[in-house]
Amino acid sequence: MLIINRLNQVEAKFIIEGAVIKANKLGVPMCISVVDESGSLIAFERMDGGKIHSITLSQDKAFTAASSRKATHEVNQACIPGHENNLFGIHTALGGRMCIIGGGLPISFEGKVIGGIGVSSGTPKQDLACAQAGVDSFNRMLSQAAS
Amino acid sequence: MLIINRLNQVEAKFIIEGAVIKANKLGVPMCISVVDESGSLIAFERMDGGKIHSITLSQDKAFTAASSRKATHEVNQACIPGHENNLFGIHTALGGRMCIIGGGLPISFEGKVIGGIGVSSGTPKQDLACAQAGVDSFNRMLSQAAS
Amino acid sequence: MLIINRLNQVEAKFIIEGAVIKANKLGVPMCISVVDESGSLIAFERMDGGKIHSITLSQDKAFTAASSRKATHEVNQACIPGHENNLFGIHTALGGRMCIIGGGLPISFEGKVIGGIGVSSGTPKQDLACAQAGVDSFNRMLSQAAS
Amino acid sequence: MLIINRLNQVEAKFIIEGAVIKANKLGVPMCISVVDESGSLIAFERMDGGKIHSITLSQDKAFTAASSRKATHEVNQACIPGHENNLFGIHTALGGRMCIIGGGLPISFEGKVIGGIGVSSGTPKQDLACAQAGVDSFNRMLSQAAS
Repeated sequence: MLIINRLNQVEAKFIIEGAVIKANKLGVPMCISVVDESGSLIAFERMDGGKIHSITLSQDKAFTAASSRKATHEVNQACIPGHENNLFGIHTALGGRMCIIGGGLPISFEGKVIGGIGVSSGTPKQDLACAQAGVDSFNRMLSQAAS
Repeated sequence: MLIINRLNQVEAKFIIEGAVIKANKLGVPMCISVVDESGSLIAFERMDGGKIHSITLSQDKAFTAASSRKATHEVNQACIPGHENNLFGIHTALGGRMCIIGGGLPISFEGKVIGGIGVSSGTPKQDLACAQAGVDSFNRMLSQAAS
Repeated sequence: MLIINRLNQVEAKFIIEGAVIKANKLGVPMCISVVDESGSLIAFERMDGGKIHSITLSQDKAFTAASSRKATHEVNQACIPGHENNLFGIHTALGGRMCIIGGGLPISFEGKVIGGIGVSSGTPKQDLACAQAGVDSFNRMLSQAAS
Repeated sequence: MLIINRLNQVEAKFIIEGAVIKANKLGVPMCISVVDESGSLIAFERMDGGKIHSITLSQDKAFTAASSRKATHEVNQACIPGHENNLFGIHTALGGRMCIIGGGLPISFEGKVIGGIGVSSGTPKQDLACAQAGVDSFNRMLSQAAS
């Protein structure tokens, strides 16, 4: 049998909180999704004013990051037509569920992906900054628990 | 009436075994799909640690290779926007089921495609190496049966 | 963090083997799918002669059983229009991915669902018998490992 | 390797011709689909005046009949909620591609399904009559070739 580590609900709330604080600093209301290591949704928040299409996009970014174990903006680079490590075409796979726009990050524990976060409504750079803030919030929580 | 040759279950298992051996050598747990000449799934294995999105991606690579009778990395090249033999856009066809990322290979017998293999979870180059190992395994099996 | 138990590839092979032996006894070539606790496919086998639509149906039965933590034939009963515990309509959910036809069973360990099996190509009763044989095979494997 | 018999294009034309003659007698312009044993479309004709939704429906009936190796009106009976051999729910499987409305028939040769026909635009009874006329046309062709 496999033993799998997976984000729980308390951790997901911390992650979203970190992203929300950053989004408020940027002044951009965001859609924020947190998924488990299988890409299944654990928690979602659409801040007041978050965009409609970002409900789906944030989920797809989180799914893509957790499943590919890579930031979505890194997948984006490998997806440029003719790129040497060519993933071009992956952005339309799974009925479009694979999302290669910046703003999705895997969340890891002891070197294993245990979930992912996806943020959408701003520019890819803003989305990524909020996703990173979510990951940072989780890592702070971990190191506080360890100390 | 048409007389069609089609991979059977025993052959599919040999093909997957060949791919698994290569994946273990590379140290990358893979999702491996084998389809028949119509693109319908015969056998699938997700090695422990294979990626979630690769479940679908490996099936779609196998389908695309069997149906287009070409390696998916070759379709990828023809899909670069502006390519002289321009297939750009085929990666979004069939609801995204056409997959043009390297790692899909047709499987042939006496010059006719009788199935396909699709591998996913590594880089396209690693995926292709495992798919090729699967094809090699089938061809060895054929030549042993003939001798 | 959550700690999750999940079927591994070796176990999935045992489960499929158990179902195949039963299918051979019944004389009905089956499609057999094994998924993990999140409903993601681990292993699939289409016995020679298994039906085309059963490729998807067996996966959907396995998904539905693992996710609802119930046998699909039990969900079927609750889905009869007007049933007191009325689930009528669930068969069309998730784009039809929820499958309420008999032949899907959850697979459990120490009271927790760790995966599922779905079988299709025969009558629902035959499909269920093969799925049960797969579960039995897993349970035998567990009790042998324990003894 | 498996050796599969499959309808060819000439046979598919005969089958459609048989269905068209019957449709003209009934005075109902039909959509008629012929698929191979894997459910893949070989030939399609929308008679002038055939209904738009029947383009898809006739394909789905042909697919369902070929894959389940049963007439679609027989599947319909087993799909009644609470039926003892309960297939209720199959009508929404595969994203709705399974079609259990009368008018789909498998086409067999020496006891094996080699394709299917699906007819739509009239009542299920009219559709079935035309599908049967298509099958009859194929069987006549076979017996003439044999004599």
